[in-house]
Formats: sequence, C-alpha cells, structure tokens
Amino acid sequence: MKHWHDECAIFGIWENEEASRLVYLGLYAQQHRGQESAGIVSLKEDGRHVHHKGLGLVADVFDEAGLDRLKGKTAIGHTRYSTTGSNLLSNAQPLTAQLMSGPIALAHNGNIVNAEVLREDLKNKGSIFQGTNDTECLLHLLARHPSNDIVKCLQESLPMLEGAYSFVLLTHERMLVARDPQGFRPLVLGRLGKSPVVASETCAFDLIGAKYEREINPGEIFWVDSSGEYSVTSGEAKKNLSQCVFEHVYFARPDSLVFGKSVYESRKQLGAELAKEHPVKADVVIPVPDSGVAAALGYSQESGIPFDMGIIRNHYIRRTFIEPQQNIRSLGVKIKLNPQVAVLKGKSVIVVDDSLVRGTTSAKIISLIRAAGAKEVHVRIASPPTTGPCYYGVDTPKKEELIAANKSIEEIKKFIGADTLGYLSTDGLFKAVKSNSSKYCAACFDGKYPTKIY
Amino acid sequence: MKHWHDECAIFGIWENEEASRLVYLGLYAQQHRGQESAGIVSLKEDGRHVHHKGLGLVADVFDEAGLDRLKGKTAIGHTRYSTTGSNLLSNAQPLTAQLMSGPIALAHNGNIVNAEVLREDLKNKGSIFQGTNDTECLLHLLARHPSNDIVKCLQESLPMLEGAYSFVLLTHERMLVARDPQGFRPLVLGRLGKSPVVASETCAFDLIGAKYEREINPGEIFWVDSSGEYSVTSGEAKKNLSQCVFEHVYFARPDSLVFGKSVYESRKQLGAELAKEHPVKADVVIPVPDSGVAAALGYSQESGIPFDMGIIRNHYIRRTFIEPQQNIRSLGVKIKLNPQVAVLKGKSVIVVDDSLVRGTTSAKIISLIRAAGAKEVHVRIASPPTTGPCYYGVDTPKKEELIAANKSIEEIKKFIGADTLGYLSTDGLFKAVKSNSSKYCAACFDGKYPTKIY
Amino acid sequence: MKHWHDECAIFGIWENEEASRLVYLGLYAQQHRGQESAGIVSLKEDGRHVHHKGLGLVADVFDEAGLDRLKGKTAIGHTRYSTTGSNLLSNAQPLTAQLMSGPIALAHNGNIVNAEVLREDLKNKGSIFQGTNDTECLLHLLARHPSNDIVKCLQESLPMLEGAYSFVLLTHERMLVARDPQGFRPLVLGRLGKSPVVASETCAFDLIGAKYEREINPGEIFWVDSSGEYSVTSGEAKKNLSQCVFEHVYFARPDSLVFGKSVYESRKQLGAELAKEHPVKADVVIPVPDSGVAAALGYSQESGIPFDMGIIRNHYIRRTFIEPQQNIRSLGVKIKLNPQVAVLKGKSVIVVDDSLVRGTTSAKIISLIRAAGAKEVHVRIASPPTTGPCYYGVDTPKKEELIAANKSIEEIKKFIGADTLGYLSTDGLFKAVKSNSSKYCAACFDGKYPTKIY
Amino acid sequence: MKHWHDECAIFGIWENEEASRLVYLGLYAQQHRGQESAGIVSLKEDGRHVHHKGLGLVADVFDEAGLDRLKGKTAIGHTRYSTTGSNLLSNAQPLTAQLMSGPIALAHNGNIVNAEVLREDLKNKGSIFQGTNDTECLLHLLARHPSNDIVKCLQESLPMLEGAYSFVLLTHERMLVARDPQGFRPLVLGRLGKSPVVASETCAFDLIGAKYEREINPGEIFWVDSSGEYSVTSGEAKKNLSQCVFEHVYFARPDSLVFGKSVYESRKQLGAELAKEHPVKADVVIPVPDSGVAAALGYSQESGIPFDMGIIRNHYIRRTFIEPQQNIRSLGVKIKLNPQVAVLKGKSVIVVDDSLVRGTTSAKIISLIRAAGAKEVHVRIASPPTTGPCYYGVDTPKKEELIAANKSIEEIKKFIGADTLGYLSTDGLFKAVKSNSSKYCAACFDGKYPTKIY
Repeated sequence: MKHWHDECAIFGIWENEEASRLVYLGLYAQQHRGQESAGIVSLKEDGRHVHHKGLGLVADVFDEAGLDRLKGKTAIGHTRYSTTGSNLLSNAQPLTAQLMSGPIALAHNGNIVNAEVLREDLKNKGSIFQGTNDTECLLHLLARHPSNDIVKCLQESLPMLEGAYSFVLLTHERMLVARDPQGFRPLVLGRLGKSPVVASETCAFDLIGAKYEREINPGEIFWVDSSGEYSVTSGEAKKNLSQCVFEHVYFARPDSLVFGKSVYESRKQLGAELAKEHPVKADVVIPVPDSGVAAALGYSQESGIPFDMGIIRNHYIRRTFIEPQQNIRSLGVKIKLNPQVAVLKGKSVIVVDDSLVRGTTSAKIISLIRAAGAKEVHVRIASPPTTGPCYYGVDTPKKEELIAANKSIEEIKKFIGADTLGYLSTDGLFKAVKSNSSKYCAACFDGKYPTKIY
Repeated sequence: MKHWHDECAIFGIWENEEASRLVYLGLYAQQHRGQESAGIVSLKEDGRHVHHKGLGLVADVFDEAGLDRLKGKTAIGHTRYSTTGSNLLSNAQPLTAQLMSGPIALAHNGNIVNAEVLREDLKNKGSIFQGTNDTECLLHLLARHPSNDIVKCLQESLPMLEGAYSFVLLTHERMLVARDPQGFRPLVLGRLGKSPVVASETCAFDLIGAKYEREINPGEIFWVDSSGEYSVTSGEAKKNLSQCVFEHVYFARPDSLVFGKSVYESRKQLGAELAKEHPVKADVVIPVPDSGVAAALGYSQESGIPFDMGIIRNHYIRRTFIEPQQNIRSLGVKIKLNPQVAVLKGKSVIVVDDSLVRGTTSAKIISLIRAAGAKEVHVRIASPPTTGPCYYGVDTPKKEELIAANKSIEEIKKFIGADTLGYLSTDGLFKAVKSNSSKYCAACFDGKYPTKIY
Repeated sequence: MKHWHDECAIFGIWENEEASRLVYLGLYAQQHRGQESAGIVSLKEDGRHVHHKGLGLVADVFDEAGLDRLKGKTAIGHTRYSTTGSNLLSNAQPLTAQLMSGPIALAHNGNIVNAEVLREDLKNKGSIFQGTNDTECLLHLLARHPSNDIVKCLQESLPMLEGAYSFVLLTHERMLVARDPQGFRPLVLGRLGKSPVVASETCAFDLIGAKYEREINPGEIFWVDSSGEYSVTSGEAKKNLSQCVFEHVYFARPDSLVFGKSVYESRKQLGAELAKEHPVKADVVIPVPDSGVAAALGYSQESGIPFDMGIIRNHYIRRTFIEPQQNIRSLGVKIKLNPQVAVLKGKSVIVVDDSLVRGTTSAKIISLIRAAGAKEVHVRIASPPTTGPCYYGVDTPKKEELIAANKSIEEIKKFIGADTLGYLSTDGLFKAVKSNSSKYCAACFDGKYPTKIY
Repeated sequence: MKHWHDECAIFGIWENEEASRLVYLGLYAQQHRGQESAGIVSLKEDGRHVHHKGLGLVADVFDEAGLDRLKGKTAIGHTRYSTTGSNLLSNAQPLTAQLMSGPIALAHNGNIVNAEVLREDLKNKGSIFQGTNDTECLLHLLARHPSNDIVKCLQESLPMLEGAYSFVLLTHERMLVARDPQGFRPLVLGRLGKSPVVASETCAFDLIGAKYEREINPGEIFWVDSSGEYSVTSGEAKKNLSQCVFEHVYFARPDSLVFGKSVYESRKQLGAELAKEHPVKADVVIPVPDSGVAAALGYSQESGIPFDMGIIRNHYIRRTFIEPQQNIRSLGVKIKLNPQVAVLKGKSVIVVDDSLVRGTTSAKIISLIRAAGAKEVHVRIASPPTTGPCYYGVDTPKKEELIAANKSIEEIKKFIGADTLGYLSTDGLFKAVKSNSSKYCAACFDGKYPTKIY
C-alpha cells in the first residue's frame, strides 16, 4: 500500500564507548521513518569528524568495518525517506561542512517551508549548494554567521527558518538539538547510564535500554558539552502548537511515546471513537495489517464484535522484488496481503484501516475480501478524510490524487466497493488523542495550515 | 527467536507463458519455508533447461534479467533453509543433471533418512557427488537406472528411499511430483487457467490467483506432459500416515491450507484448547508476535479475557544486523520485539506462544514484559513440550538443547521466570487439528518416530 | 587484436607454508594463458581440501580473505580461457570430487580429442556430468576405477585419453602431474627451497624465485608425497613428439623457457629467418606491439634496417571497456594501437607481426600506418600461413575464418593493403626453433594433425 | 616502480551526438595521467547538467547505462591521480555547482599554489567547502562574483590564482578552457568534424579520430557557444614560460604531441644526448620497460650498441595484487618486470631508464639483472638528478625521499649496485627538447621554482 511517508528520523548520543553502534541501533529502531538513506557522523577525541552515508536500509548501509571506522564517543545519525529520484546520495544526511570554528554535522526531520526563498538569497551571495534539500540552508546560514559560538549562531539563524524542524547537530565539542517553536515533529531526550541520548521516537530508547526523560520543547535549543547540559529558548514557543496528529494516526511506531502519549493507545482510542461514530452490525472486525491493527482492536472492544486476523501480511517484502507484469498483476495487492477464506466466508465483515489515500488499494482489498466469501464489507477509517497535502516533512501525493479531496464519501464508498463507509470525524480524532486543535496540526484533514505556504 | 525451521518449499507450473515469473512468485509466497537459497529451472521449447540458483532470499537471488533468461512455458523452483555452513551453493536446489534420456532437474522438501547408506553405496560404484545433501542420491539412482522412461525410473527408485519427501521434477518433456507413502510433508495441486501448478502450501496458489484442487496423496506420483495428466501410486500409502503436526503448530503460513485444513483455524483452536486446559485469571491475553497471534486470539475468545498487542514486532529485521560489543541486555530479542508499557503496566498478563524450544528467548521476553510493568506473567504454550529432534526435513536443535527434554515443567517455569506455565497436551493438540495420532507424526512431542533412525 | 588463445595454465606446489599465496602468484605470472576463470585447491593437514574458483582474472577472483581460507601447505591452481559462453563457473578448474579414497582435485591444460566418445559411454553407465568440458571425463574414469591407489588409477585411465593433456592432481596425500605421450603442451618442474613446484611455463618460477629443473617428459607421471618424489611412464612417449610450435610463435611469455628453449630467442630467430627469406629495402622496421616486438628486433638485426616503435600500445585495456558504437568505431583498432606520425611520416616501413589470423586487424593497422604518412608498407609475418584450426587446447577460429585457408598470398596482400607481404616458410620456422617436424606439431600451418580427429 | 605521477587529464567536446562516449574515449586514451577517479558531466538540450563520477579506472567507473544517462551533445571529463587517502570521491572532478547564472562544471589539471590562502579567506566569508582540493577555490570565486557573465567572472577570478592550471568548464550554454599564463600543463585544441575538442594530450585526439589544431596558449581563455568560437587573454602570457619538461621525460604518452613536439622523438633524443655525454663499451642496450624504451633506442642508435628487450614487463598488473607474508626477494618489482637470462647472460649491459626517484626500485632491478647473469651493469638515466619536489600538479615524494637530493652520484651508484652511472645534464635535457630554460620549468632538476612557494 503506497502510504504517506514521514521523511526522517534523527538520533544522537553523547559520550558512550559504543557511540556509533548505538546510533546504528537507534536508527534501526526508527527505520520505519525513512528507508532511502542512512548516515552517521562521529566525533573523535581529536575534535575531528568521521562520517559514513549510503543509500538503502540502515542494515545495508553499515557493516562492521564501517562502524569501526566511526570512532569516538559521540555520534549522530539520520535516516531519510526521499521523494527526489536523482542524485539521492548528495541529499543524504547528516550534512557536513567545515566552518571557521571547525567541523559541523547536521541532521533534520521536518521541512523548512521558506527554503527556496532563503536558498535564492544565499546563492545570490555566492553560496554553493551541493544538494536540493531544504536542510542545507541552515548550514549556509551558520557558515556565514560571523560568530564562532555555535549556540549564538543557532539562536540567530533559527528564527529565519519557517516550518518544521527537529535538528540534531554535532560540532568539534558539542552535540545540540533544536525543535521549531510550533513543535511539528517529535523530538525526545533520554539517558543511557549518564549519557544523554536524543531521538525522534522513544522506540529507539527502548531498543538500547535508555530511559525516556522528556520531550525537547517547541522552541528549545538543548546541548551538551564537556562542561554540562544546557537549554535555551530560541524562538518563543507558540501558544498554539502544531504537533502532527498524523504521527498518532500512522507515522510513528505503535510502541513509541509521541508528544508524551502512547501511540498504540491513541490508535486503539481512534478505533473506539470510530465505533461510537459509525456502528454497524457485523460478525467480525478485521484490520488491514499492520497499520490498522490497533484501531481494529479498539473498534472491536468498543463494539463487542469479535476481532480476527482476516488478512495475512507477507513480511518478506524487499525493494528488489520484481513486480509481476500486467497479465499477472491484476491481483497485485496479494503480494503483501492475503485475505483468508477460513475467517471471511459467509461473514459480514468490518474492515478497519488507519487512513485512505488514493483509494485504489482499498478497492483491491475489498474485492479480495469479497472473493474470499465475505457477505458484507463495511469499511471504517480511523481518521478523517485526507483532503490536503502536507508541507511539513511528509511525502504526500498531490491534491488531485487524494480521493477525499475529489470525491464525496458516497462516491468513495462506490469507488472502493464497500457496503458502507465511515470516516472518523475531526472531533473524534482530537478526542482520541485527548487534546484539541490548539495543540495539533491537522491541516491534511481540515486545511488549516499553520504557516504561510510558499 | 531462534525457532525450528522447515527446510524447503517447492513449486512448479506447466505450460504458462509467464512460467518463470510465476515460479518466482510461488517461491516468494513460500519464503517462510526457506531463506538460505532459491533456484528456478525452466524448460525451453527445444527441450533444454535453463537454471539459476543463488544464496539468499528469492527477491535477492533473481533480478529482471535473470527471470528473462529463464525462458520456457514450464518451470520448477525451490527455496531452502540449510543447516550446513560451508559450500551452500552446491547444495542449493533444484539439482540438475544430464541423464541419457536428457536433462533432469529435481527439488525436494523433506529428508531421506537412509541417505548416508545410499551415498556410500553409490560412491563405491563410482558416482561423483557434488554436494552433501540427501537429495542428490535420487539423482544418481535415476542416472544409473537402465530405463529411459522417467516414470519407471522413479517408480523403481523411490522405494529405495526411506523418510520424508515431496519432490518436483522436470525433464525435457514432463513435470512430475512425488510424495512419500507416509505423507510427511505437504504437497498440493492447483490450477491457473488450464495449467496445473504444484506447491508445498496453498498460499502460493493464492498469490498467483490459482485455484486449489487437492493434495498430492501420500505415495502418489503425478505428472503432466503434452499428452495429458497422469497419476500412479509408487509405494503404497501407509495406513498410518505421518503428516507433520508441527506444520499446523508453526511452520506453515496461517493463510495456507495444509493437509486439507486451514492453518489459521487450527492455531486458533490450539489456543482455545489451551484455554480449556490451562485457565487462569488475568487482565489481558497477548501473543508473542507473529507466531503466537492466532493461538492468543483463540485463547482470548475461549476465555473471554481481552486480547491485546502487548509486544510490538519490528519487521525491518535483516540478516546483517550488527550487535554492539558491550552487552545491551536482551538486545537480540529487543531488535525484534518491544513490549509496551501502555498495554502491560500493572496488568496480570497471559502470554501465548506457539512452542518453546530452548527457553532462553522466552526468559528474555518475560523479563522485558516485567520491566514494562506487568504484575503477573502467565505463559501458555499452544503445543506440548518439544522433547525430541525431527529427522524428516526440519532443522531442530539437538536433544540436549531442547529445554523440555531436560527439565520438568516446574523447572522450565522457573527458568523462564513465569508465574505459571501451561503446555497444551498431546490430546489437546490432536483435538485442535480434528484428528488423531494415526494421521500425524508428533514425534518431536511424543517420541514415536515413524521410521527407522540411522 | 582477436588472437588465438591458449586455453589454460596450471600450477602446483608441495609443502610450503605459503602454498595458496604462491599458487596465486604462479597463476598471476601465467595470466596470459587464460583470463576467463581462476581456481585454487589446497590440502589441509587433516587431508581435506579447500577450494575457491571464480570468473575473471586471478587478481579479481582472490582477495586476502579468500587466500587465508585456502589453508594447508600444498595447493594447485588453474586459469582458463574458455570459449563456451554459458555456465562458465561449472567449467572452471580445478575440478573436484569425492572418491572412495578421498577428495581429488584436477586441473588440465590441453584438450582430450575423444572426450565426446568417453562422455557418452560414461553417461550410459550412469555418471552425472556437471559441466561441458573434456576434463571431467578423467574424473569419472578415476571415480569408477576399482583401485584406491591413485597412481594405479591414473596409469590405467590415461591410456584411454587421446590428445593433449598436462594435468596436475591433488589427493588427500599426494600432488601428481601427468603429460601426454606426444607432449603437446608444456609442463615444467622446479624447486623453491626443498619444495617441488610445477607449472606450464617457467615465468611462474621466476616470479616466486623458484629454480627451473627440467620438463616433465612426454608420457611421464610424476608425484610427490610425504615419503618422497616418484616418476613413472604411463603411456610410452611417442617417437615423434607433437610439441606445439605455436607456443614459441605466440602463446608463451617471451621470458619463459618452453620445451627447453627461450621463447624470446626463438622469436628473434623467427624474425631473423624472416629477414633472410623476405628481404626488402626500407627505412625502418616496426613491430605490432607487443606480440611482434622480438621478431621485429630479429628482423632489424639480421637486415641492418633500424628498429623503431612506430605503433604505441595502450595497456589500460579492461574487459569492462565499452566499445564505441559503429559511427565512432571505424577507427576501432586505435583503442589499443596508435601509429605515430613522428616515426612513420614519409618512411618506407617494414611491419612485423607474429602471425595473421583473419586479416581484418592487419588491414586496419596498415591503413592507420598509411594515414600516419608512411610511404610504403611491407608486411612480414614471423610464421607460415595459418591454414587450419587447432584441436589440442587452443581456441581458434573455424577454417572459413582463417584468411590463409581461403586466399592466396597475393589476395591477402591486397586484402590487408600491403605493398609487399612475406610469410616465414615452414622450413624457416623449424630452423628458428632449432628442430624439425619430428619434434613439433605444426598442424595449424601444415595440416599434419598428429591424432585422429573426431 | 613507484614513479612520479601527473595528477590529471581533462577532455571536452562541443556539439557531437555521441558526446559522452567520446569523452569516455578521450579519458581512456589519457588514463596514464590519472587512475584514481574519473568523471563526466554532460549538457542536455534543456541547459541542465548530468554527471557521473567514481573511483577507479575509466573503464570501471562507467558502464553502458551510465553513459546512456549522460545525455546531451556537449560534455567534459576528468581523470585524477590523487595523493589524499581519505574521502576521495568528494575530490573527484569535474566539480559541479549551481551558480545564480545556472549550473557549472569544472575540471582541472595542475595545482594552485596559493589555494590555502584563498581557501581560508573564502571560509571566513562563509563559503562551505566540500573537498580538500585546490580546484574548489575557483568554483567559490566564480560563485561570489557579482556578474552573470561567466567569461567576465573567469577573467577577473583567474588572476587571483597562482600556479599551474589547465581548466575546462561547462555552463548551461558554453564550454570554456583556460591555461595559466606560464603554461605549466599542456592543453590542446582539435576538431572532430566541425566539433571543437580539447584535451591534455593529443593521443586523445588520435583515438577518436580528431585532428590536432593547436595548443591553447598560456594565458588564453577559449570558449565555444551556439554563436561561435572565441578567444581572449586573461592574464598576459609571461615572457618566460614554465612548461613542464617532465612531460617529455616521463608523464605524457610517447605518441602525444606536447608543447608542439613529439614526445617519442624527445625521448629518443634524450637517449641520444645521454649516449654522447656518457658513452661506455658494452654488448647490449636494454630499457626498463615501458618508460625507458624510447631513450634506450636513442642511446642504441647514437652509440651503435645493439638494442634488446632484456627485461619483460607483465601487463596484467592489478591494484588488488596480494603479496605473500614471507618475503620473496624483490617480489614487488618482479611482479612487473622479469629480466631474461637468454638476453643477459655473460653480457655487459647498459640499462636505460627515464629518471630515478628513490633508487630502491633501480637497486632491485639491477640485482635481478645480475642474477640473470649480466657481467657488467651500466645505468644511464635520460634526465638530470631529481633534487626537488614539484608544486605544480605532480605527485612527488618529499625531498628527503629523493635519492639525488641526498646522495652524490658516486653514492647513488653504490646504492643501486651499478658498475657505472650516468645522468643526462640539464644542458643535454634542453638540447633534446630543442629549447632552453626560458621556455620550460625544470625546477625538480635545477631548483629554479618559477612561482612563490607557500
């Protein structure tokens, strides 16, 4: 299922003998946030950096010898999901440069919405850009700043950026993180022994046995060096935060805490609210695996209708998999998902999914469910209709490809071939995450974009 | 979790324009049965064979160009899980040879228990063996048979083999399959349009849209050539069959029919029987994913205790994963499985798994579940204690490594750190698969080996 | 220049701590005899073999780790130039098998002319062949021999082979070499410290600092084991030997001794005889590099006409080189060879080459020499017209592609665009190698094939 | 033999359908000038660039698909020999950047001696450097120049550079070349049909069948766009040129014209002058192949002593060559060079080489020549003693490693084990290239560095 993709994960650890291997693990645990490229930069005792980046999954980019070369007790890393087809490696992060004050490495989750404006201005002044990504702008702003004090440089450069950013930086003496004042993307602080660790999601802490301490606050710059740990506010945190509600709907791993809340619990609650809003008589509730499992459980528990695994997912999917040619492909979606006659035959079925993008995949799944003998197919979507693209670090289709931006719910129901179709309301969405629109960005659902769009 | 492994899957299709691509898909769907190597042999119109084999997953071994070279309308394939470390490629299947009657290719799921005896005899007579696997014996028996009629060769050679075999063979004019008279391993016949297809499991038929027709019977030789489809009995089918009950417990994909029964339904029923035999008061039933999911659902539905996903599985696992040099506690398990505080904290938890091999993984999981805040941990195993190795095509540890062969249930409970531990009884096992000991081999549970052991 | 190719080199060393690395060097020095594949088999102290084979040049097939795995103090190796396009790796040597007496490895330079006859007979008896090469026949003959004494097996099997063979074999306790009774291909014995070494050419001894002792005699079996060194005659050496004269003309490295004579000296002498037979007035003698250099020097010294490097050869040629498409290619031969205006302009030029196969390359070279300003171009070939293919281990074009088999010398002169053309006579050829037709096979020149042709 | 290395070759072609393939060939012909990396940038019809760079030989870096992607009728390329071990790929050329006026690509042969000064200044102003090479400075100077007219930018930026440069540049509409006012490195203009082509050496023209027109003059900027071909002077050409005399001694291919003269003729003349300056009675003159061949011929013709190939060179050398762990004496040299007993035994030998760097290789060669039976060994070097490193684009050892900077000729003679040793004089050197010190830089011989050294 061609889904929306979060564009990145970041990770960093300060002063641990196994720094680069722990970053490797931290990225590995966050692999779902970016599968196109991975990179690690470490800080050696002599104040120099070592870096390694490559295209592919974390486990493919790094080998033993590669990690051994990443010497030093402090390291940061990044995984990226990229939309641009060409020249991917020059966009892989962490980005690196030599400033007058020494080496710098920079990794970013989010998207700077005024990057093109900044870029043109910087190029006019003679800056040479290597890649096409928005992150490189900050590197040039820092390089051009007259001060040698990186914190000062950051404090005075970050306010020039609009949009979403959770940054981790590494200099010759410091590891720093910064989160935009609206708090679009998650960023958390933990501890392994005495070492501070930072990550996009807490599941990275779980893997290495680090303890979660707190979120990095919107607008906060936090850093650590040999003299201690520090925190300042760069831009003042906005009153109305813009935390991405889709992290709870789909992006984050269910076993993570995001914006201080269990993602799995949020998803079960989304399912429960959905059951309240769109009840229907049926024999069984089944999820579209894996993304719909928690919501389907919530729906089942709220409604009392039994939960079952009516669709089995094949987990051996590889990038190198060769898609069948058209004459075989008519049943394409079965490569990942196989509905089971034993569960579905003669049943009235509620199918729960997290969201619905183009509708083509859902149409195929429903047709397979019917082919497996289901009597009725009731589709329930655990989020509102997605009517707009995201500009804050998510790879989304264009508006014209979003089915809910172009068809009524009745039309969508017909298109996907469901007997009934129910979407969660925006109210239900905020209820499920126990918050309201002043804390979250739900622009992809409600069109209320919290920044200027360029 | 280092589990028992089935050693192979086979697949074949007769007369389809896309033969090699369909075999690729058929192997892909059966990837869970063997991840070490994969191979395909196709039959060109001129009666010659083309073959390609390699180490690794199906999606890694074959690329577009490789499939394009596998011309012809008929093809067979194989995936292998191998235990021998050295020289893997020469053991990869299908094995191929030039007989006087023309080329032959052979793929095997199972294990010939008298292979060493046959091998020594053949070497004494001057046969040169390329690999170390048992399958090669049949190739030499066929090569030395004076007849040019492959069916006759097979009929007279198969009785010399003892043990487990589901074979698929390809000559210059025929595709043949054969299953041993005790029916150890599954083997099914389906149809795609008019083309006969054969596979180890029906999930391969689902993926390509073929229809399941029937099992190949124990003792049957079935073949197809340009003149039609034929079936003969080689060895008479034994009265007491030895179908592998562990296929239902763990090996097969839940969405397959094996020995004529839905694996998913069997597993739910194993969980239901387990709930009857070992009830306990608790707040939640959680599976060890993915293998325990169906049994946990069965346990939950029978007991009325809510089902939840208390452990999240990471599906980005790669073979090349690199561990840190210092120990991170239980890292190996955590890479795959992450228990969730949000589900487990303060709860009395029933953990359901399909089986228990060495106990070390269970011990780590239980400790992680406790660390996530569970109050009580009740372990329920949806099969009897595994007390003996398998000699019929399954990669099992030695007896001294099987915890249930060496410790009492009380000792195992302590070793894994559970509050209570319950195994399904052998009776419950047969009840769940709606059969009795005259149809199944359960030697790994009850020690009743249905053949001589060499 | 698409030249004739020798098909193989062999090498072996007994009891040296660095055995596999010395075989690597021995193959490296003989790389000119075969660039398609390379392989080494070593004998460990426990009597078991380790082997590694691959496609490509020696330096590409082996890396440090690969050589480290080839443990043991004795090892043999092989490089191959192969004509068959498909399935190359299964034809790479040394071939290996398990005999009743233990492991055996076998490497071969030459060609068994009755291989197809032997092969059909062996297949009829049930032997399974892995590759398509002639060498495998000997392996099956040895496997089927009732004796466990390898020397006896060899003595009784070799007489069944007709044609050209220089073999090296390795068992669990012995290294053996054997050369056919007609002595087609070279095979030499040397010594490094106390360790016997065997090779196809002496240049392999020079590289590792071993001393040349003698040729392995036609019809000799020589072996070494822990008890000493032994030699027996298998087939009686023929009175009329058939040593390949083309080894002196082109195949062997100029710095080798072959059949007891310096190849470089032979080539200079071929040039000197050529000058005597075909004198012409000219300003300069130039070679087609590198194969014509020694003969051109001989021609220059005999004639007194100055020698110069009128054509420069580019030595960065790689297999992966991408040939220009037709519109660029008209001047194709320049990729390797570039005639120099500075040497050639206004001059009457004698161009010396070792032999002339299809004539197309010569035609291009001559046209380039004229384009560089040469006034006259006199072509002198340091061997007789090649009128027949070789059946004794050399990759030659078919008769219809050999220009001298299809055109008169006058026609060839016109075809290649020379002002005059002179070939060495067969008498001159034998004079140059200081021998006569009773010692050499010159069938490619005179059509007198010394064996039955199948 | 670890020799001095020229650091680069450049190539460019304007408006040819096969542009990228011709650049590939042009680089291939100049492979001797740089084997570490290769790169090509092409200009598509829409004014955008496509580039591909990689580490290794030209034939390894590019494959068919790679060349096909380099669309467009104009392209430039570069090969590099690099001294820096780390991070080679970011130093590979052509360098690319996005200027305000559009894309630019830049390839360089030479060395900017004031690069470090420029670099510090640019970094102070906020420029971010990607690699460590001197060439990147020009890119930043161009990026910071306020004009959009690339010719103007170049005219005003080049005078800030001191040292050696032959540049080729590609914009969205122009191909440009520039050569420093002292003319250190060669740069030539040719024509293929109507298309202008530029290269470091004329051998690149020969390969693709282009006609040589003239040198790009010292101080000239030449460019071509859709409106025509233009030439301006950037810095005024110096009265005293500094053309690198070592190009004639060793760097360039013998079949090239460099600074308007045949390299092969120069080398023969160097040998002839050497014979005049250092005559000696001997039986044979032999070259150290391949670099000493032309000089040895010159020596032989001047002295009347016969020329012979006393040392055979193996051309299958690979970078990955693996040495044995125990020492084989002089193995490193023997891998490449094998002296022949047949030529040398009992002879008084003159060995001619182009130059002598550390002396260690010569010592080994001489010892091998003596081991082959030579009675006397007279070493003749066809250039003066190399007493200083080069700062103008050549990879040279430090002064303390240059034997002639640290030992007298008598001491060198003893060190290398020669019976007599003769170097060409500086006068002889200039006589051979038919010029004088006002046209050439011979600083490595005479210490007269023609620029400030930083």
